[in-house]
Amino acid sequence: MNTSNFVLRGSVCYSAGAESLLVMDDGFLVCEDGVSKGCFPRPPAEYKNFPLVDYSGKLVVPGLTDLHMHAPQYSFRALAMDMELLEWLNTHTFPEEAKYEDLEYAEKAYSILVKDLKEGPNTRALLFATIHVPAAMLLAGMMEESGLVSFVGKVNMDRNSPACLCEKSAGASLAATREWLKLSLGKSWKNTAPILTPRFIPSCSDELMKGLSVIQKEFGLPLHSHLSENRKECAWVRELCPETSGYGNAYERYDLAGGSVPTVMAHCVWSDDGEIKMLAERGVYAAHCPQSNTNLSSGIAPARRFLDAGMRVGLGSDVAGGAHVSIFRAMTDAIQVSKLRQALVSPDEKALTFEEAFYLGTAGGGSFFAAAGAAVHKGGQKGPGPAGSFESGFDFDALVIDDSGLASPSPLSVRDRLERAVYLSDNRNIIAKYVRGNLIHSLPREQTRTKPPQKAPGR
Amino acid sequence: MNTSNFVLRGSVCYSAGAESLLVMDDGFLVCEDGVSKGCFPRPPAEYKNFPLVDYSGKLVVPGLTDLHMHAPQYSFRALAMDMELLEWLNTHTFPEEAKYEDLEYAEKAYSILVKDLKEGPNTRALLFATIHVPAAMLLAGMMEESGLVSFVGKVNMDRNSPACLCEKSAGASLAATREWLKLSLGKSWKNTAPILTPRFIPSCSDELMKGLSVIQKEFGLPLHSHLSENRKECAWVRELCPETSGYGNAYERYDLAGGSVPTVMAHCVWSDDGEIKMLAERGVYAAHCPQSNTNLSSGIAPARRFLDAGMRVGLGSDVAGGAHVSIFRAMTDAIQVSKLRQALVSPDEKALTFEEAFYLGTAGGGSFFAAAGAAVHKGGQKGPGPAGSFESGFDFDALVIDDSGLASPSPLSVRDRLERAVYLSDNRNIIAKYVRGNLIHSLPREQTRTKPPQKAPGR
Repeated sequence: MNTSNFVLRGSVCYSAGAESLLVMDDGFLVCEDGVSKGCFPRPPAEYKNFPLVDYSGKLVVPGLTDLHMHAPQYSFRALAMDMELLEWLNTHTFPEEAKYEDLEYAEKAYSILVKDLKEGPNTRALLFATIHVPAAMLLAGMMEESGLVSFVGKVNMDRNSPACLCEKSAGASLAATREWLKLSLGKSWKNTAPILTPRFIPSCSDELMKGLSVIQKEFGLPLHSHLSENRKECAWVRELCPETSGYGNAYERYDLAGGSVPTVMAHCVWSDDGEIKMLAERGVYAAHCPQSNTNLSSGIAPARRFLDAGMRVGLGSDVAGGAHVSIFRAMTDAIQVSKLRQALVSPDEKALTFEEAFYLGTAGGGSFFAAAGAAVHKGGQKGPGPAGSFESGFDFDALVIDDSGLASPSPLSVRDRLERAVYLSDNRNIIAKYVRGNLIHSLPREQTRTKPPQKAPGR
Repeated sequence: MNTSNFVLRGSVCYSAGAESLLVMDDGFLVCEDGVSKGCFPRPPAEYKNFPLVDYSGKLVVPGLTDLHMHAPQYSFRALAMDMELLEWLNTHTFPEEAKYEDLEYAEKAYSILVKDLKEGPNTRALLFATIHVPAAMLLAGMMEESGLVSFVGKVNMDRNSPACLCEKSAGASLAATREWLKLSLGKSWKNTAPILTPRFIPSCSDELMKGLSVIQKEFGLPLHSHLSENRKECAWVRELCPETSGYGNAYERYDLAGGSVPTVMAHCVWSDDGEIKMLAERGVYAAHCPQSNTNLSSGIAPARRFLDAGMRVGLGSDVAGGAHVSIFRAMTDAIQVSKLRQALVSPDEKALTFEEAFYLGTAGGGSFFAAAGAAVHKGGQKGPGPAGSFESGFDFDALVIDDSGLASPSPLSVRDRLERAVYLSDNRNIIAKYVRGNLIHSLPREQTRTKPPQKAPGR
């Protein structure tokens, strides 16, 4: 099935705002031209000519968005996490990323990642590649091929980095960025677009940041970087930028902290009230990466304060700081660390509820694609819209989950089945996966579900 | 294959003490009469008549022990965790456990649990059942049937519990316990034995505890209970037992805190130095249940202090406080929460390493069965011995893990493959599972691995 028109029947769950989960035990989702027209208790008459895809009784939820992930680090996921951030970067991460200069290695590694992403619950991702233009182009091409929606960034780093992974100068980094943008924007990708990814303040010189700000304005590019992840890192930024009022301000002074362009900052674990206020005011998304922040002993991000301050927030796997790429896992990690934060650090910061975590991993992060998609697909074909909900106007990203293997001695409500599936399901349970209305993955027995245009409403 | 003699070849990993992991890339494990004779770089001549089970290249690790799990709570795993302990018990747990008075329900629910346990990585478990004798007997029978090794406890609770789940008096609870022991000890179970499980101090009257102490001495039974899990619970125990020096002492005064009999106390999150010292001196095992302690906002147990004090420690899933029954998951949870504890609460308590967590989930908890098995299988047939290692004399509990699906662009060391498998594997990866030398589970294509007695050493 290509971008198309159909009605999909199932037990539908999606968020209507951060605190409210809509559940329709037997719902009919309408997909027109890759976009949701809403969820209905019976098939609306005006779509009676659309074929029916019948997943009655199966859970149907929006696709998940990974707001922060390092594609080249997937190769060493779930390894070597007995260090904090800066030591870990130098010991494991930078040497691994340097290997992506070799396109053959990159292809081998990225093939594994893209296959796993395709079979998992995420439908969208913001990916850091490496400094290497050819490998970043390769990754973007493979992501486009997969049918997933993504922003892919060629990384910038021109200081405080090992020789094997350091661009020779700000000028060289900027030139490579322009070359990469020319290549990327010349492609007729439908689901893939470039995003600026200066690694983080310590690895980008002032001159580089200034140049990236110029490029950003010129191309209207969204931006994706790191902020206030780890205490030692924050202290280092204070040393490197004594003239700024804080880490966030080190981006802000180059106009690289939201405002006019869609921006994601990963972590924000140690953002203080002032920084949170600035991020909220400038519409910056925080990519909350609870597992990575745990694995690298960074701490627990104040997700409750983000929400209370009206910040935009989504979830990130931050592979390979995180070992698990599934945003279902990030949802449960987010709930769990928020409980520990409340119990041990900040009694006033109420733990996240299941409903809130589900929102963050779906519409919370998925809304990034509304503005960002428009920003980079202006001239040509229609770019991605917002994802993570079935409200009318959202892109039709959907997962069909067969949770019958998660057995229960008593019948469960659809809402409880969803909670259980978020904690316990794995790729085996995802029997069909749609992105922008396209079926991009399904388990073998599920490939012939579509029925001819429906007759009278089915109940 | 029944309890038998064989040599098993594979990439073998097991702990030699809490900090050291032994790895043999191509090792030959000898199983004689269900007991390990050690791991060898080539098949020892004296076992040349043993058939060879060839899992070359597959990971082979000891079976895992779940030191603390509530069998009746598996039915609501991964649900309803937005509460702290005491509220959660009254709202969700007690009403669910009350259902096990109905044997039909119990059979339906326990069938799901036992099937899942059989297919997962745990080979041994300490299980709380409910107060109901018939359902506890049913569970024990099903566990015996499964081939897994377990201690099953009929729960005691005669106060502060809802009417639907409260025994009528201390006398009634003690009489039911004797009835259950008579039934249990009359069975010719090989892998299953009873264990005393007074729920926790708040639900057991003084008279009941005194009576259980008498029964314990009479039968030489091991004991399994809860200790210092949650702050409100600890405060309640101080109110209930003003004459004691602490929660641990509330067991100790009845001689129900280790010493002469093998004892497991779950949690110990809020145990102070004095309590830790007492537990260490009396040889009590702490069942460290990191995920449950997170889900129920209890806190983070001081696992580093347990180890430094020389306490015996294993891991528990504490389903349904924990959502995941796999002790692989408990290993990674233990590492992760220990990092947060160090980063946010106690900088001096070094986080657990991967090697330490692996030890806790294998030999750490598995050693409980040495003394405990002997205690309850005195007269009759040979009971279980210690598990969780391949050192000579340990019961041969082994998992064969096919990790080829956890793809990597570069070859990984066996040690790194193990770390990745602990973080990322699931039941699909467990292609064969041995308990006391018996193959109790295998994936279909793995059932015909055994070869005739081997010829010359294979390399």
